Amino acid sequence: MPQTANKSRPRKDLRTSSPPASPWAGRRRPREQKALKREAVILAAARAFRTRGYHNASLDDLARDLGVTKPTLYLYVPGKEAMLFECFRAGLAQIQASLEECERAPVLARERLFAFIRGYAAAIVGDFGWCMLRAEDQHLGAALSRRIKLLKIGIDRRMRALIEAGVADGSIRECDTKMTAFALAGALNWMGHWYREDASLNPQEIADRFIDVFNVGLRGPR
Amino acid sequence: MPQTANKSRPRKDLRTSSPPASPWAGRRRPREQKALKREAVILAAARAFRTRGYHNASLDDLARDLGVTKPTLYLYVPGKEAMLFECFRAGLAQIQASLEECERAPVLARERLFAFIRGYAAAIVGDFGWCMLRAEDQHLGAALSRRIKLLKIGIDRRMRALIEAGVADGSIRECDTKMTAFALAGALNWMGHWYREDASLNPQEIADRFIDVFNVGLRGPR
Repeated sequence: MPQTANKSRPRKDLRTSSPPASPWAGRRRPREQKALKREAVILAAARAFRTRGYHNASLDDLARDLGVTKPTLYLYVPGKEAMLFECFRAGLAQIQASLEECERAPVLARERLFAFIRGYAAAIVGDFGWCMLRAEDQHLGAALSRRIKLLKIGIDRRMRALIEAGVADGSIRECDTKMTAFALAGALNWMGHWYREDASLNPQEIADRFIDVFNVGLRGPR
Repeated sequence: MPQTANKSRPRKDLRTSSPPASPWAGRRRPREQKALKREAVILAAARAFRTRGYHNASLDDLARDLGVTKPTLYLYVPGKEAMLFECFRAGLAQIQASLEECERAPVLARERLFAFIRGYAAAIVGDFGWCMLRAEDQHLGAALSRRIKLLKIGIDRRMRALIEAGVADGSIRECDTKMTAFALAGALNWMGHWYREDASLNPQEIADRFIDVFNVGLRGPR
């Protein structure tokens, strides 16, 4: 029975031990190539959206930038809306990777939070930062908008959990963890509006200045 | 000579002492009415932009909302782009009014800054908040974009000056005043993305939570 089931969906069978004559032989490399090409399409789309704006960027321009035809683009991502969603997801993946690294670090939660602030800042000024910050405002269909909202909520929850862990381990004082997460995310997200690559501070230096403010506050001796 | 000069531009002469028979008599009231109607147009535009998005909101819809014809709208504001600019300016006027009040208050600069944070939060969640935050992203012409940028820079400068005054009077510790202003503005501006009128905290309570974080920071006992 399992063999019959396999026969009915041969595309899921990589057949890595098949002889070269098989049409499926060596399929891993083209698949990897397709993944790489898809990443290149998404990166080019992110840059086009950031430079020209989502509404002004056309798939025709994007195809020209990449030296392919428009139907070729559709082999990788099925349309402009999906393209923006994939850009959003690529940016979020950077933030999630940073979260995973920070959440596991064997230090006080305040230090884990501050390490995450550095990772977040890097993602915001990265290639997908613009799309991550603006995707929700671009009048996407209800389904994609909802998925983006849910993914953002997931990040917010994990950021809040880091702050709560700090209150629990004594490295962060008692505070409104939700509003603290919003203040932190706001300060970082706003970098997407003002940061320029020729700025006098690099993203890590900016993150360090923010950490300084959020760590000990502004109150002076008087 | 001055009289001749006056005769050549009679429209600048209000002739408040002229008899009622003059075509300029009683002109002040219609002018006030026009100002009020213009404000109503700008407010309706701000709400339409926020609800439908700038690109999706049409002047036809706006005219219908207000129960007037589209050419009537043009009597008050000469087009959609100018409408967005006026919305931006109306929001900024609220922030500027708050700044003027705070800058004059006879208290330590830290308290002046925190009072301004409350005023800023109120403006961000107000009718013109959306336009203020998003106007620059809507692909306005170069001239209007530049005016918006300059007006924003003006607010940033005054906010930074408040922080510098705090460092000078000892109520704010030595810090990177530029990055501190960006962190504060980011936290507040981001409210425009997440704040909902049915939220459990009102804008003043949110501002107070932010002030708490920025005042003494997050560092706990450990």
